[in-house]
Amino acid sequence: MNYGVVTKVLGNLLVLEALLMVPSLIVSLIYGQTDSFAFLISMAIMIVLGLIMGRFGGSNNIIKAREGLTIVTLGWILASFFGSLPFVISGSIPSLVDAFFETMSGFTTTGSTLVENIEILPRGILFWRSFTNWIGGMGILVFTVAILPTMGIGGFQIFKAESTGPIADKIVPRIKDTAKILYITYISITLLQIILLVAGGMSFYESAVHTFGTVGTGGFSTRNTSIGAYKSTYIHVVITVFMILSGISFSLYYGLYKGRRREVIRNGELRLYLGIILTSGILIGLNLYMGTGVYKNMGLAFRDSFFQVGSIITTTGYATVDYDLWPTFSKMILFFLMFVGGCAGSTSGGIKNIRILVLFKLIRRQVVKTFHPNAYTPIKVDGKVLSDDTVAGISSFLVLYIMMMVLGTLVISLEGLDLESAISTVVTSISNVGPGFGLVGPTRNFSVFSPYSKLLLSFLMLVGRLELFTVIALISPKTWRN
Amino acid sequence: MNYGVVTKVLGNLLVLEALLMVPSLIVSLIYGQTDSFAFLISMAIMIVLGLIMGRFGGSNNIIKAREGLTIVTLGWILASFFGSLPFVISGSIPSLVDAFFETMSGFTTTGSTLVENIEILPRGILFWRSFTNWIGGMGILVFTVAILPTMGIGGFQIFKAESTGPIADKIVPRIKDTAKILYITYISITLLQIILLVAGGMSFYESAVHTFGTVGTGGFSTRNTSIGAYKSTYIHVVITVFMILSGISFSLYYGLYKGRRREVIRNGELRLYLGIILTSGILIGLNLYMGTGVYKNMGLAFRDSFFQVGSIITTTGYATVDYDLWPTFSKMILFFLMFVGGCAGSTSGGIKNIRILVLFKLIRRQVVKTFHPNAYTPIKVDGKVLSDDTVAGISSFLVLYIMMMVLGTLVISLEGLDLESAISTVVTSISNVGPGFGLVGPTRNFSVFSPYSKLLLSFLMLVGRLELFTVIALISPKTWRN
Repeated sequence: MNYGVVTKVLGNLLVLEALLMVPSLIVSLIYGQTDSFAFLISMAIMIVLGLIMGRFGGSNNIIKAREGLTIVTLGWILASFFGSLPFVISGSIPSLVDAFFETMSGFTTTGSTLVENIEILPRGILFWRSFTNWIGGMGILVFTVAILPTMGIGGFQIFKAESTGPIADKIVPRIKDTAKILYITYISITLLQIILLVAGGMSFYESAVHTFGTVGTGGFSTRNTSIGAYKSTYIHVVITVFMILSGISFSLYYGLYKGRRREVIRNGELRLYLGIILTSGILIGLNLYMGTGVYKNMGLAFRDSFFQVGSIITTTGYATVDYDLWPTFSKMILFFLMFVGGCAGSTSGGIKNIRILVLFKLIRRQVVKTFHPNAYTPIKVDGKVLSDDTVAGISSFLVLYIMMMVLGTLVISLEGLDLESAISTVVTSISNVGPGFGLVGPTRNFSVFSPYSKLLLSFLMLVGRLELFTVIALISPKTWRN
Repeated sequence: MNYGVVTKVLGNLLVLEALLMVPSLIVSLIYGQTDSFAFLISMAIMIVLGLIMGRFGGSNNIIKAREGLTIVTLGWILASFFGSLPFVISGSIPSLVDAFFETMSGFTTTGSTLVENIEILPRGILFWRSFTNWIGGMGILVFTVAILPTMGIGGFQIFKAESTGPIADKIVPRIKDTAKILYITYISITLLQIILLVAGGMSFYESAVHTFGTVGTGGFSTRNTSIGAYKSTYIHVVITVFMILSGISFSLYYGLYKGRRREVIRNGELRLYLGIILTSGILIGLNLYMGTGVYKNMGLAFRDSFFQVGSIITTTGYATVDYDLWPTFSKMILFFLMFVGGCAGSTSGGIKNIRILVLFKLIRRQVVKTFHPNAYTPIKVDGKVLSDDTVAGISSFLVLYIMMMVLGTLVISLEGLDLESAISTVVTSISNVGPGFGLVGPTRNFSVFSPYSKLLLSFLMLVGRLELFTVIALISPKTWRN
């Protein structure tokens, strides 16, 4: 383990984070509220500490898998810790644990909040809070699409057939190329959504903030009632569409740009993802229209249904209504969508549709094998045969997800909340959704938990965000034994 | 598909079932209640129909995998249908759908009931009801330990290394040998428990009935408050021990009998199973003693904790107290134990400890692979390396279990019950546990559901009992093509 280079990169990261606070500082100066000072102090601390750390490292700059994942994991933790300083210093979220939870929730694009009354916070602070969603989304894209495949680890080899083993000296240029494509796509989508929201009558400030929450699939809002505060169907539809777009694998946008339209249309993961959205949206819409007295208008029922389906499956977590009051059938669909998540290589969390697709194929194969035990039945995705190792990796992801959920739920349930709230609190954290059901429903917040639980949930958000095995492998004693 | 032989075997099965009603008839005659007539009519119908069906078949008696699984699946359904006649004819359970549910619940050793007041039913009927638990337990042992491995299908090759492919002419003698060992073990355990319960002051009738429910891990009782009706700690302990014994793989008893003690003690599945029971029992005991005002007595807390843990993990479903009132932490452990189930090759349902063990090892391997992608890391159980196919089969079992749970829960949730009740209703059915939480808690029953839901739950019990893939492969169009 090369501690020097890890320290150096983390130092650079802190300086970068300080620079990323500049837009928030500008917002706070424009609106002339009390929070500018908090940003200046935070930035000063981060730049000084970052520059000191940046002096470490020396001549050995080789980053291998272990250093890489250590940097990513510690990077997310450090960024959340220092990113919480403006909240604490400005007094917006006085407790350091609370501010850490909120910032981790932001950077992991979870969007769970423990702020009781969001609307009284200064605008610069709220801008920074949502900007963490946007930065986190960008970060996870670079991590899963650009960095992980070059290390030859994780389940993501499926998407990058050209990826090879860990060849340290070739990593950096390849990462830079891929990252550049990602930046451009991400920023383009962001600008497009801001323009469309402004065109719908939303202020520039609120458009920007909600776009950060949307394309990062984070879901932080400036309103206590989330998107429900806006009555315009146009706004709801724009945000629904952009949430769904943000849950699609970003490599497909690059494919479209390169003219590979057929390939994109035939993409198995994309079809499953859109199929689940369509089916769930229709089922919930019908259930709301026919099953409750609330929806007399079928159009409204489908508008709210598709918004919520898009919000939950992409693990954004915005809400337009209190879906916790919906009939059990609708809630149950939303609950299961929390596990599914969006597509791999997007800003969404959850198990991801590509894994669900492979797991479905695993069942189908086993059904065939029941009566034809010796049949050759490879599992194919988009025409490519998956190796036994890849399939086993995907199965083990599901198992680890369940194990984390079970352990997390057991610990959280010691807080004495009901079964539904306990499970959904943990699932919403691992899948980086945001709100859940019951005590953590869309009109509630996470302030009810003890500091220990808040730290546990922060940990679960990080574990879920970094594809489970990254963090679990790092904290496993086996990794450090030699 | 050889329809002749299928009809013939099913006919023989009906005659056998009629004969198996004799003890219940005797009980009804002894107590001189109104139910003897119902048994006589039912038996007459079954014998006549069975003899007619037994004339089918002709010279071709070859039973291959497809015929075998069709017989087993239809056998369970037919047995449940005709086994429900005494309930209907005697007027104990007037609705045929209800009686079918109750009998399927009996034969699948689930133990879910929809009888509001059990204690007013005639004794012969209650004897038959519990006897279905015992017959079902025997049936599932023969199916999973003797029949499935000889067909070379399912995930059970792990336990029978000597099993080969489907060689039709060799199946019958091998099945008979294995089945004989199973009969002897099963009957020995049954007699031992009856003796111990009678020694504890329980009447012979009640001892027999509760032993059927215990060794079959079914959980039907003659009392509305289940085992809670008996205040004797001795009775509680005996039933706890025998539930746990019945959840152990029966091949281990044969191993003990053959003097292979070391092998039994080192059995990975047994260790995991006992480890989970011990851990869960202690955690719930502590939670009950320290977390609630109800338990002032630590001994009592642990007695009730271990009883319930044993009852749920073995999927028996007996209760001594209303565990639905326990703190969420305790309920959550019980909820997860419903998924786990007992050991493979026992009368328990659920995912089974051997699969959980392999799935844990799958995670461990993936953790190692994160940083050593090319490491050779085979998955071993009890010193034997598992093939990729076996591991994939176990993973796909988990995935199919989850898929059945998701679909089942969605349909059941249309009944409008709460999330917790809906999920636990479905899980308790697939895992053949019996009671669940909330609306289907230990003091409630399944009479709240519509006839459609009762049929769906009956189907889920059967699918779970027959190791999922048996039924799913049979109803898959792929199986019947060509």
